[in-house]
Amino acid sequence: MRTAYHDQLAALSTRLGDMCGLSGRAMERATQSLLQADLLLAEQVISDHDQITRMSAQAEEEAFMILALQAPVAGDLRSIIAAIQIVADIDRMGALALHVAKITRRRHPQHALPEEVNGYFAEMGRLAVELGNSAREVLLSRDPEQAARIHEDDDAMDDLHRHLFTVLMDREWRHGVAAAVDVTLLGRFYERFADHAVEVARRVIFQVTGTFPEERACDTP
Amino acid sequence: MRTAYHDQLAALSTRLGDMCGLSGRAMERATQSLLQADLLLAEQVISDHDQITRMSAQAEEEAFMILALQAPVAGDLRSIIAAIQIVADIDRMGALALHVAKITRRRHPQHALPEEVNGYFAEMGRLAVELGNSAREVLLSRDPEQAARIHEDDDAMDDLHRHLFTVLMDREWRHGVAAAVDVTLLGRFYERFADHAVEVARRVIFQVTGTFPEERACDTP
Repeated sequence: MRTAYHDQLAALSTRLGDMCGLSGRAMERATQSLLQADLLLAEQVISDHDQITRMSAQAEEEAFMILALQAPVAGDLRSIIAAIQIVADIDRMGALALHVAKITRRRHPQHALPEEVNGYFAEMGRLAVELGNSAREVLLSRDPEQAARIHEDDDAMDDLHRHLFTVLMDREWRHGVAAAVDVTLLGRFYERFADHAVEVARRVIFQVTGTFPEERACDTP
Repeated sequence: MRTAYHDQLAALSTRLGDMCGLSGRAMERATQSLLQADLLLAEQVISDHDQITRMSAQAEEEAFMILALQAPVAGDLRSIIAAIQIVADIDRMGALALHVAKITRRRHPQHALPEEVNGYFAEMGRLAVELGNSAREVLLSRDPEQAARIHEDDDAMDDLHRHLFTVLMDREWRHGVAAAVDVTLLGRFYERFADHAVEVARRVIFQVTGTFPEERACDTP
């Protein structure tokens, strides 16, 4: 019984890890579509999003079935509850990649981004992939030290986001209000993507250690 | 045993309902602080936010204890899982009110909003309170028809949000890029607040009927 339970839990963690990887890749391709005003790629990200939504529903149902059939207690129960909460975070990461792709599509054939900020978004896209992969690794390894390292990428994302705002607020900004609105929303999507990856890691660490890692100020508007 | 269980579940729903009401009131006061550049009120919203965070942790722990001690099955199990997911949505509603208050504080003694858009935010603040209250009522009544009506306020919020963007994108916008960035972020916070209230109602209906209400396009970037 316990063995079946742990096999099921491992399968669930693998599914959640796969979803993190998929969300990261979705953000990578959404970023590429954004930088190159590539409508075809944006449309692909948008249609592929269904896969993450489907996997979310499956993961939730798997977790529910483990609860219903195995009636786990104590730490095992906390693990399943955390898995259900983690599904919502990963689902949101996928939705944020979708949003980026939709802005690409809305502005096509124009570029949504002024060339001046392309470098920021290229780097934020790279970090998003890393964050997705790191969240996947933490889900599989359940290693608190690895989880702590996810904060480094999140800090880097926050730094980029802050710098991006100084560029926007600069009197030299010559790209008009419409571009500023797009850049503001897009920057927010990447920052929230990183926050959710951090939240996934935080919940895994809570599963393992029973306490949340030190509270950090994230998602400052 | 079943009676104790249902008492505990009712207490949990009441707590979740109270949290929805508190989040709505937080958004109401954050809106007032924003419209009047009222630093004291913004600081109050910021310090009161801890209460919502504490109630979220308590609600999660209550749900966990019900699971651990009562080992509910089938529909009862789904209700508790939904409650845990709902906590995350309400917690986020509180965080979004906090963000509004923080923007008020950051811009003080200036107003964050150009007077031209005050009317939009006054109305979005009013809708946020209604959405918080409606979500609370749905949690307590578990009435699918009442849950369906929450979409009306959400639609109104989406309309306001769309109109706000047309004001921003208008060539006549004379308030500069910095104000446009603030208005963009603030508009997004209200829109997300509404989305989370809708999600609360959606999950309650899933508890009651076993199926989600018709999928709707929400949170379009």
